[in-house]
Amino acid sequence: MTDQVHKADPGLCSNPALEIQPIVAELRQLRDASLAARNRVQRPARLPSRRSLTSVVDGLSAALFPNRLGWRDLAYENVDYFVGHTLDSALRELVDQIHRELFFLSQDSGNEELRSKAVLIAQEFGKRLPQIRQFLESDIQAAYEGDPAARSPDEVLACYPGITAMIHHRLAHELYLLGVPLVARIIAEISHSVTGIDIHPGATIGRSFFIDHGTGVVIGETAVIGERVRLYQAVTLGAKRFPVDENGALIKGNARHPIVEDDVVIYAGATILGRITIGRGTVIGGNVWLTKSVPPESNVSQAKLRADDYTAGSGI
Amino acid sequence: MTDQVHKADPGLCSNPALEIQPIVAELRQLRDASLAARNRVQRPARLPSRRSLTSVVDGLSAALFPNRLGWRDLAYENVDYFVGHTLDSALRELVDQIHRELFFLSQDSGNEELRSKAVLIAQEFGKRLPQIRQFLESDIQAAYEGDPAARSPDEVLACYPGITAMIHHRLAHELYLLGVPLVARIIAEISHSVTGIDIHPGATIGRSFFIDHGTGVVIGETAVIGERVRLYQAVTLGAKRFPVDENGALIKGNARHPIVEDDVVIYAGATILGRITIGRGTVIGGNVWLTKSVPPESNVSQAKLRADDYTAGSGI
Amino acid sequence: MTDQVHKADPGLCSNPALEIQPIVAELRQLRDASLAARNRVQRPARLPSRRSLTSVVDGLSAALFPNRLGWRDLAYENVDYFVGHTLDSALRELVDQIHRELFFLSQDSGNEELRSKAVLIAQEFGKRLPQIRQFLESDIQAAYEGDPAARSPDEVLACYPGITAMIHHRLAHELYLLGVPLVARIIAEISHSVTGIDIHPGATIGRSFFIDHGTGVVIGETAVIGERVRLYQAVTLGAKRFPVDENGALIKGNARHPIVEDDVVIYAGATILGRITIGRGTVIGGNVWLTKSVPPESNVSQAKLRADDYTAGSGI
Amino acid sequence: MTDQVHKADPGLCSNPALEIQPIVAELRQLRDASLAARNRVQRPARLPSRRSLTSVVDGLSAALFPNRLGWRDLAYENVDYFVGHTLDSALRELVDQIHRELFFLSQDSGNEELRSKAVLIAQEFGKRLPQIRQFLESDIQAAYEGDPAARSPDEVLACYPGITAMIHHRLAHELYLLGVPLVARIIAEISHSVTGIDIHPGATIGRSFFIDHGTGVVIGETAVIGERVRLYQAVTLGAKRFPVDENGALIKGNARHPIVEDDVVIYAGATILGRITIGRGTVIGGNVWLTKSVPPESNVSQAKLRADDYTAGSGI
Amino acid sequence: MTDQVHKADPGLCSNPALEIQPIVAELRQLRDASLAARNRVQRPARLPSRRSLTSVVDGLSAALFPNRLGWRDLAYENVDYFVGHTLDSALRELVDQIHRELFFLSQDSGNEELRSKAVLIAQEFGKRLPQIRQFLESDIQAAYEGDPAARSPDEVLACYPGITAMIHHRLAHELYLLGVPLVARIIAEISHSVTGIDIHPGATIGRSFFIDHGTGVVIGETAVIGERVRLYQAVTLGAKRFPVDENGALIKGNARHPIVEDDVVIYAGATILGRITIGRGTVIGGNVWLTKSVPPESNVSQAKLRADDYTAGSGI
Amino acid sequence: MTDQVHKADPGLCSNPALEIQPIVAELRQLRDASLAARNRVQRPARLPSRRSLTSVVDGLSAALFPNRLGWRDLAYENVDYFVGHTLDSALRELVDQIHRELFFLSQDSGNEELRSKAVLIAQEFGKRLPQIRQFLESDIQAAYEGDPAARSPDEVLACYPGITAMIHHRLAHELYLLGVPLVARIIAEISHSVTGIDIHPGATIGRSFFIDHGTGVVIGETAVIGERVRLYQAVTLGAKRFPVDENGALIKGNARHPIVEDDVVIYAGATILGRITIGRGTVIGGNVWLTKSVPPESNVSQAKLRADDYTAGSGI
Repeated sequence: MTDQVHKADPGLCSNPALEIQPIVAELRQLRDASLAARNRVQRPARLPSRRSLTSVVDGLSAALFPNRLGWRDLAYENVDYFVGHTLDSALRELVDQIHRELFFLSQDSGNEELRSKAVLIAQEFGKRLPQIRQFLESDIQAAYEGDPAARSPDEVLACYPGITAMIHHRLAHELYLLGVPLVARIIAEISHSVTGIDIHPGATIGRSFFIDHGTGVVIGETAVIGERVRLYQAVTLGAKRFPVDENGALIKGNARHPIVEDDVVIYAGATILGRITIGRGTVIGGNVWLTKSVPPESNVSQAKLRADDYTAGSGI
Repeated sequence: MTDQVHKADPGLCSNPALEIQPIVAELRQLRDASLAARNRVQRPARLPSRRSLTSVVDGLSAALFPNRLGWRDLAYENVDYFVGHTLDSALRELVDQIHRELFFLSQDSGNEELRSKAVLIAQEFGKRLPQIRQFLESDIQAAYEGDPAARSPDEVLACYPGITAMIHHRLAHELYLLGVPLVARIIAEISHSVTGIDIHPGATIGRSFFIDHGTGVVIGETAVIGERVRLYQAVTLGAKRFPVDENGALIKGNARHPIVEDDVVIYAGATILGRITIGRGTVIGGNVWLTKSVPPESNVSQAKLRADDYTAGSGI
Repeated sequence: MTDQVHKADPGLCSNPALEIQPIVAELRQLRDASLAARNRVQRPARLPSRRSLTSVVDGLSAALFPNRLGWRDLAYENVDYFVGHTLDSALRELVDQIHRELFFLSQDSGNEELRSKAVLIAQEFGKRLPQIRQFLESDIQAAYEGDPAARSPDEVLACYPGITAMIHHRLAHELYLLGVPLVARIIAEISHSVTGIDIHPGATIGRSFFIDHGTGVVIGETAVIGERVRLYQAVTLGAKRFPVDENGALIKGNARHPIVEDDVVIYAGATILGRITIGRGTVIGGNVWLTKSVPPESNVSQAKLRADDYTAGSGI
Repeated sequence: MTDQVHKADPGLCSNPALEIQPIVAELRQLRDASLAARNRVQRPARLPSRRSLTSVVDGLSAALFPNRLGWRDLAYENVDYFVGHTLDSALRELVDQIHRELFFLSQDSGNEELRSKAVLIAQEFGKRLPQIRQFLESDIQAAYEGDPAARSPDEVLACYPGITAMIHHRLAHELYLLGVPLVARIIAEISHSVTGIDIHPGATIGRSFFIDHGTGVVIGETAVIGERVRLYQAVTLGAKRFPVDENGALIKGNARHPIVEDDVVIYAGATILGRITIGRGTVIGGNVWLTKSVPPESNVSQAKLRADDYTAGSGI
Repeated sequence: MTDQVHKADPGLCSNPALEIQPIVAELRQLRDASLAARNRVQRPARLPSRRSLTSVVDGLSAALFPNRLGWRDLAYENVDYFVGHTLDSALRELVDQIHRELFFLSQDSGNEELRSKAVLIAQEFGKRLPQIRQFLESDIQAAYEGDPAARSPDEVLACYPGITAMIHHRLAHELYLLGVPLVARIIAEISHSVTGIDIHPGATIGRSFFIDHGTGVVIGETAVIGERVRLYQAVTLGAKRFPVDENGALIKGNARHPIVEDDVVIYAGATILGRITIGRGTVIGGNVWLTKSVPPESNVSQAKLRADDYTAGSGI
Repeated sequence: MTDQVHKADPGLCSNPALEIQPIVAELRQLRDASLAARNRVQRPARLPSRRSLTSVVDGLSAALFPNRLGWRDLAYENVDYFVGHTLDSALRELVDQIHRELFFLSQDSGNEELRSKAVLIAQEFGKRLPQIRQFLESDIQAAYEGDPAARSPDEVLACYPGITAMIHHRLAHELYLLGVPLVARIIAEISHSVTGIDIHPGATIGRSFFIDHGTGVVIGETAVIGERVRLYQAVTLGAKRFPVDENGALIKGNARHPIVEDDVVIYAGATILGRITIGRGTVIGGNVWLTKSVPPESNVSQAKLRADDYTAGSGI
């Protein structure tokens, strides 16, 4: 029967009674209780916006690499207009987002004072952009040299999630150092969502860093990574079980992630936990589980498959 | 030579002859054959829309947490207008998507009957939103307490992919229970794409659940998770090899994923397979591979690296 | 005090002096140096655009599966108009992106010659679309048959990230074969970002291929996969340490990834490295680390947990 | 002082108490009273949407003149895909809008019946599109021949508000004849807003009609215009004072606007009122005020300025 | 030759040297000189935004008539949520725009003081919205009763530019009275652009006012119009030549436009200038030019066409 | 009955058979015939785009008046970046549109040659922008001085349709002079649609020109207007009946519109036709109809209303 399917435009119907009022009322009660529990009845949290910071990072990326990541093709002599205007827009948006974090955390500072502080942070951050670009160039070069599939550094910049992750991280890390860890963390999570690579903005990472494939990589807040280090997918540089104080509360802020010295390579799936040191030039094999320091130039690999594994055949 | 680069606006060219007609014809043949094979010649599948459900979840998230996830800053006394309007829009959009799933599956039910059923499902779903918010608050609190890097519950809600995943899951799970598993599954995959965390909407998860980092986590359809459970990245709660019937077809619907009791912690990369029970208070170490039940308060850890692994040096 | 929070619209302020000029100047110096180092002063790289290729893939997906992935509901007799118009738009956009890659790589070819070549590539690519659809149908069927949670092939197409990944891969692979590896790679990375599945466009994959869950899967450039192969999340088909020439530079282009024969199943987390062959019908267990060929019909599983692991209790 | 202007992002303030609740309540009372007065308490009016009809007309215009008004450059051999797809979208949107008008006016017709009727109207309307294009081509040609500034018919189509008005009118007039005067009227008002030309959709207008400049032209519902007629700006073809019945209510629907025969020219600002006939070939001068019929081939001009007007000098 | 038209994507060319720098420099000099001339070097004018006020008026219109002008179909019991949320958004946007006007005009008031004043104005304005709706209902009813082509009051609201103009005017007039004439004027010009009806926001207009067709109507700042007045297109209620002071500067602010008493009808094209009074119940004929007061119940018509005009035939 | 109104989402229905194919075929026949008649079978007209030129004008307006018409608030020291980038974008878009006009008109010029010519035109046009700004400043000042309702020049720029019209005209006029009359005409019609003021881009207009209200103003192609001229709404500076050659074809291009000398004022509704000269300092009264030259310092006014008109009372 086709005649029964020529039905009405739903817009013409008196809409279904979805009984929204009681839901709204219940949600309000929960919201009020939550605001009270968080001491925010008078000041509901208005957090930095992920959408806004996404566009800040897009703008900063375009300003750093206008020919390759900018939105439009640019004539050589007019690139500076693009860079200046894009930077101006992105930094002013960033001032607003920094302001939000400062306001969210502040107890009784005046609003003007917070605004001035936000401007100062953005100014200082702006000054560091050229150095960020220099570090990113070293990362791009490292990826190009480290991957047999890469045909040019330009291609690396356009394609590689490891580079996308490092653009976000190097921006976020400076913001973390400048005292806006929440803005920094949101930028890190934008990157995490896009690349599958989770680098805490507190992590310190030297030049010429390269993550290949990348999905599942986790790098913790207090990790320290030297120069020319290479990581593959699913590598974790994490903390061991967290220490608690006598009340059972977590002790925060102490150094709890690995130190990875220069020229280390860590293959896919390796898990390295705790404040240990991986000595210069070491190679960590895939899927290795490591909780103790290793001296320079070590080669660490997983327990071998045993001879009889090939025939066991009992399935998973 | 600059004169050779002042080329034409492509819009001015007679466009290249891309010979589309034969491709269109071939694709039509394939489409017709496929419709015939699926018995859908008269009724091509019109599935719930991922784009539409993305905006439904965005709307529901904003209605649940208007100050922190809403799109605009809201005056305290007018929040209810925002919540009511956003809920109204989201639930009516949801009615359409539920209707699509019911219609897709129906054999000969009248269209009006399906519409009424869709409205009833959305109504019932709406009533459960306050409880969903309560569960999510317990998850947020668990994340705040479980991560030394977290500075406030608000930050957790804004940043943590584990929370994003649970907002999606707790919404999707209720829809799964209410009889629209395809809508529920699409919502789960939206979350999977954004967070790297893959929770089947059928999974039952108690209060105060926390997934840290999260990339690579997989939780299967019939998994049952208690309260105050904590998971790290790349944990799998999966099925063992699937049983088949005498014809070799998969037997569907039986309980085939783990039961995880209250207060269990499972570290990164652990793989737990089959309908086994992880007893209350157990800690599963990283990268553990587990296919048998363990009693409460167990500590399960991976085989140790052998002493000679540090020197083997043969690389991967 | 509420009166102190009625502050100004920031638009009304003379904006903060963000001192952008010196940043612009420094960035210009870095950019000029980088262009010189890459021999691109006269020709800054203008790469194919990820945003543009995202819409090309969306268009091609809609043309391949108009009822299920098209943007609008379509009347049966008018589907061809939609398919033809969508294909026309997508292929013409693709011509522009192919042209960009050819221009980026070219030394001194005339621009018109490159344009003609781009048109030819897109034409040839268009002709292969029907076959791509046939392969994708076999993949959809494999997913439907291989997952007990799947209720219909339509649902699989709408939801499964493994299918999303294969749509991208089968399109990208043909472009790779047609000589535009950068366009192909960008499409692969779009998929990687959305699904967490990283398949190099060079990989050769037979019919009826199914990846379940998928996050963390990596398949390398020279991998060759037969028919009816099934993979789970976090499986790596990678290369062993790369050979270098006498100067220490990577040797590129040689076959360095596994060959997986027909009807193989590889469970989650397995890592298979190097140009080895996994014989037909083999099952590789979860988390297995494998660098040597195995004969057909093998069962390969991980080292077992030792008996005392259950009691060790020393944590991670 | 610049330091006092670094003020807060308004988003950070607790927002001003705008006391919206009493306004909402008052508006609801007025709305309820209005619904009661219009007998629409159970069925609030949901009218055809101006925004939606704007896109319908854009789509139909593009389908009628795809090369010149279509949104994209089109390859010759693929134009039909564009036309078919655009037509399909526009007509289906039109079905919804027609349905709205029918529903708005209906008393107790079933919804399905109205939907079927809407489809029939749209089908019939679609069949008339080729003839509409033929008439519009005659209008374009008339404009080209009648304006010394016109360089080509293509330019006329792209620029002239008189042509824009006639595209809208010829579409709206057919819809008026097919029984959806409200949809027709909304289309007419879209044109009125864009061009300043106000043609009631009921007006009957022959081939090769040209309005130059056009602002302020008004053509009434029952006007009848022959072939090859030319009008300038601010011409009114209106009604005289409306007749009322014994109760003082307007008598509706009778013929009350002028008949303009073939080959008439009416210059700017002329006002022609009532059911009079302007004979074939007549020329009406600028600013003429005319309420009586004139025979064919007349020349009608305004009262002349008197000789002493040049010296009066007393200003306005 | 078709092969010469397959030209390059312009994005691939080094772009033409458009020599923008000297233009930028010249424009800067002009801008600096202009800022100096207007005493705004330290405070460039940042005016209320037309785009923003367009969306304010759209929001207020939707809040006043949610069923007929709202953006979405609304269920009866949830209309208040829509109204409340839309009002909240529109009024807060309005606060920002009012603030801009106050800041633009202020000399040395503190920014906070201006913000508070803006909030007070918006609050007072909000309170007047119910009365504005009442007046608009009387206007709609007047249009319905006065036009034989109107079939329902709903249609009038949806279609008639005279009603669109009055929605804008009644909102703008209250803002004018509340001390923000620039915001009011911008709203009036938005209406002017859309409808061709130019009503200065200062004009005082009584209930049940109807403008038919409307293009070209001009109503001046100090005009006063009674109840039940009807106007047709191109009517001017203007000022005579403006008086100047001894220095030749315009004297501003004095009453200089007509007073139109209740129940007056003014036909198309009539021009009425100066502070004269049109007595109650008068009818002014089309194209009349009037600069003197007329007593109540007058009938004023244009000089008649002379008998010989029909034969003169000398063209325009 | 409410149960009959819960109808289906139309997306779920098999869509109505709108029988589009025959319409598409008929339209193709008409299109082919039309292309043949215009000798454009091989080269369908691809005209400059109104949408694109709208954004060009928006960009140029923002570059000319960045503080007042720019899209964002700008810090003083960064305005040049905004201006440079906006100008760069707008001029490059303009190059494409100019190219389209040249290509449309060309017979056999090479495409590269046309592109180079388009670049040269845009370059020359760019150089004239500073002078355009100077003229516009004089227009703004004239409006401010000429209208008792104007409170500041800034307000005039933000509100007055006469200024909007002159921004468009002064840009369009230079393009007309530079040999792209179609691009110029489209810009003029954009202005006509927005303001109701119709100025042909060929018209020559001196400094300090002011149009008040403006709706219905028409200024012809060969009109020449001096300095400090003021016009009110509905003034026409038009041509008399056009001369034809012996074949009845219009003679094009000759001077046929009025010359208006310096310091002339023309009140609302005046119609001035033909190549006559209005002498310096003359005042033309409202609604005057004038086809002969007048000497300097004249006062020209309409025929007076006769004494008996007040009592005639016979209606319109």
